[in-house]
Amino acid sequence: MSKKLIGACVFGQSGGPTSVINASAYGVIRAALDAPEITKVYGAAHGIAGILNDTLYDLSHEDPNELALLVNTPSSELGSCRYKLKGEEDLSRILDIFKKYDIRYFFYNGGNDSMDTCLKVSNYLENSGYECRVIGVPKTVDNDLCGTDHCPGYGSAAKYIATTVAEVYKDAHVYDVGMITIIEIMGRHAGWLTGAAALAGLADAAPDLIYLPEIPFDMDKFVSDVKAVYDKTKKCLVAVSEGVSYADGTFVAEAAISATDGFGHHQLGGLAARLASVIKQNTGAKVRGIELSLLQRCGAHLASQTDIDEAVLAGKSAVENAIAGVSGKMAAFTRESKDGKYSCGITFEPLYICANDEKKIPREWVNAEGTYVTQEFIDYALPLIQGENTRKVENGLPRFAKLKKIKA
Amino acid sequence: MSKKLIGACVFGQSGGPTSVINASAYGVIRAALDAPEITKVYGAAHGIAGILNDTLYDLSHEDPNELALLVNTPSSELGSCRYKLKGEEDLSRILDIFKKYDIRYFFYNGGNDSMDTCLKVSNYLENSGYECRVIGVPKTVDNDLCGTDHCPGYGSAAKYIATTVAEVYKDAHVYDVGMITIIEIMGRHAGWLTGAAALAGLADAAPDLIYLPEIPFDMDKFVSDVKAVYDKTKKCLVAVSEGVSYADGTFVAEAAISATDGFGHHQLGGLAARLASVIKQNTGAKVRGIELSLLQRCGAHLASQTDIDEAVLAGKSAVENAIAGVSGKMAAFTRESKDGKYSCGITFEPLYICANDEKKIPREWVNAEGTYVTQEFIDYALPLIQGENTRKVENGLPRFAKLKKIKA
Repeated sequence: MSKKLIGACVFGQSGGPTSVINASAYGVIRAALDAPEITKVYGAAHGIAGILNDTLYDLSHEDPNELALLVNTPSSELGSCRYKLKGEEDLSRILDIFKKYDIRYFFYNGGNDSMDTCLKVSNYLENSGYECRVIGVPKTVDNDLCGTDHCPGYGSAAKYIATTVAEVYKDAHVYDVGMITIIEIMGRHAGWLTGAAALAGLADAAPDLIYLPEIPFDMDKFVSDVKAVYDKTKKCLVAVSEGVSYADGTFVAEAAISATDGFGHHQLGGLAARLASVIKQNTGAKVRGIELSLLQRCGAHLASQTDIDEAVLAGKSAVENAIAGVSGKMAAFTRESKDGKYSCGITFEPLYICANDEKKIPREWVNAEGTYVTQEFIDYALPLIQGENTRKVENGLPRFAKLKKIKA
Repeated sequence: MSKKLIGACVFGQSGGPTSVINASAYGVIRAALDAPEITKVYGAAHGIAGILNDTLYDLSHEDPNELALLVNTPSSELGSCRYKLKGEEDLSRILDIFKKYDIRYFFYNGGNDSMDTCLKVSNYLENSGYECRVIGVPKTVDNDLCGTDHCPGYGSAAKYIATTVAEVYKDAHVYDVGMITIIEIMGRHAGWLTGAAALAGLADAAPDLIYLPEIPFDMDKFVSDVKAVYDKTKKCLVAVSEGVSYADGTFVAEAAISATDGFGHHQLGGLAARLASVIKQNTGAKVRGIELSLLQRCGAHLASQTDIDEAVLAGKSAVENAIAGVSGKMAAFTRESKDGKYSCGITFEPLYICANDEKKIPREWVNAEGTYVTQEFIDYALPLIQGENTRKVENGLPRFAKLKKIKA
């Protein structure tokens, strides 16, 4: 047992928002407000940027009922940033701010870049001899953080994607004429989100083909894959990751347009529009490109209750463990089985394991042709999308948390 | 009271699918199966096309529990078509099929083109002296059918749009850097769906600007409107109808690219991508274009229970009134007030009123600048998005109806 550390805490959110990053915020804030060791609970406006420019909210002024609504409020309620620390200059500024507010606990909620920030702050404070416990709270729809079985945010985005693919399947199969539909899904380097499209198969509405960033993309093979399905059934539903790239590493979305495409110049629209154009030219079929865009990461109305509960748990455990003496670690999930049923455990992993590196889908979870995920992937992802959330609705619309955000 | 008419009925679905067209199907099928006057209940595969090519399903074989799941199953479960009748040849073929199956009731579920088909069939059968009662059952996400206060399908799509705009608002306001977001919403000629974006204001997440097809589009004014908002707040959220057109009637989405755009050649992607490019060029800001695409019309997981109930009611009333002697009409909605609260009544309007013409948003429901809807619009649309649906979920995914579709 570490020695008791009394002082204020600060919590910040960073990187791209998710449906449940505020659920982790709630876990941290509620536990911190309830902890006798924590004298003040500050929220940083726009993550580390708010610490650097001394914009902290005193969260003790917030209505507890409004705080509770954070669990169903998408995006980062305290504001986010994509700020890379500028070394010594920024770190010493952070130390000054921590001293000013007597901050002894720092909780930072984000993906791998944020864990890197967390690690740098943790190391700097330790080297400075300033006692402060630093814990990373994971979030990323991409699910690509190392050191954890899965990430808060992923399950909800996966549920959104699987549900939406199932609904689009219904729509795309309605006419008695041919139709090819290409759905572009987030994930620059890892295909966890795009693979989740396969879960629609449990609603008898599976896509025909799935293309992941882990597998080098070949435009000719893509065209012939799609044609083969289309020629047989007059329909083809394709899920494709925004991050698919050619063998040389060039993103398909950014590559110079090849002769296959026929336009040969810069184009607007994303990958779905581009691939739709290639397929249209090569099949003459009616083709529709759909980009799920921000919707998949902010669609909190479809958030998985499992994901929400785990996101709260990650935040709450971070506070409890910091108080107990843990520092320089990230709250991570382990997958456990209770009576053959999925359950989620918490562990604390060194930040250096979680920072910067990206976890990809194992090759053996993708079929030999590189055009679909295997049953192992489905078994992995399915438990994470379970549970319908019980969000508050007013006027038929989501009732988001309303925070006062009173400056400290 | 008309004379009792005993015989079979056929039901078909036509045009673009919605979240609740199958709820109307359930209303028709359930009421028809329960009616002693109706000897057989057929479903036409792909609407009028299935009648012409003699592909009818005998719906008496369906499991009643599966039929009940139709109310939460998006798209047209019997299949849809966009077939325009070829006159005498097709009509006499329809008469032959009706005679073959002793069809005395024809229920057709669709938008204004479908009501036109319904009208032609009704007139032809009457002139032929073949006794058959014909009723149109309305559906269209676009809400542009004349003769009815609103259309089944609209409320659910409006709820999807308002909820999604509110969630995107949260996401688009998260960073401390400038950001402009342009959301493209369905509606070629009428702005009912795009106007529904304003409902997000009830979740404190209103768009800043709304552009409707009813108001001639001016690119220079658009750019200056967006810039004015952006310069003030560093954010701008725009809802724009896919159907906005210049004063000369050219769709902006299809118009030759002007000098403002700077590309000057054919482009992929929809209107949102195109407008995003123009705004980017003119502001230098980070701009994101989002197209709600099919999602807004098939997002049954967010269907409004009010819309579902009304869609079932329209189908059920069509059958009951046909049995009572009504023919050549469409089931239409009236808006009634019970104790100051919205309620929906049913009336039957002549098909010629509902066929072909399009109902637009009244000019006085749009502000003078043509950049937002008024409170009258919000008062009109808000009751239609009320009520959370109670869809069946299995494995965390929607459990759609599974019909056997056994051929007659």
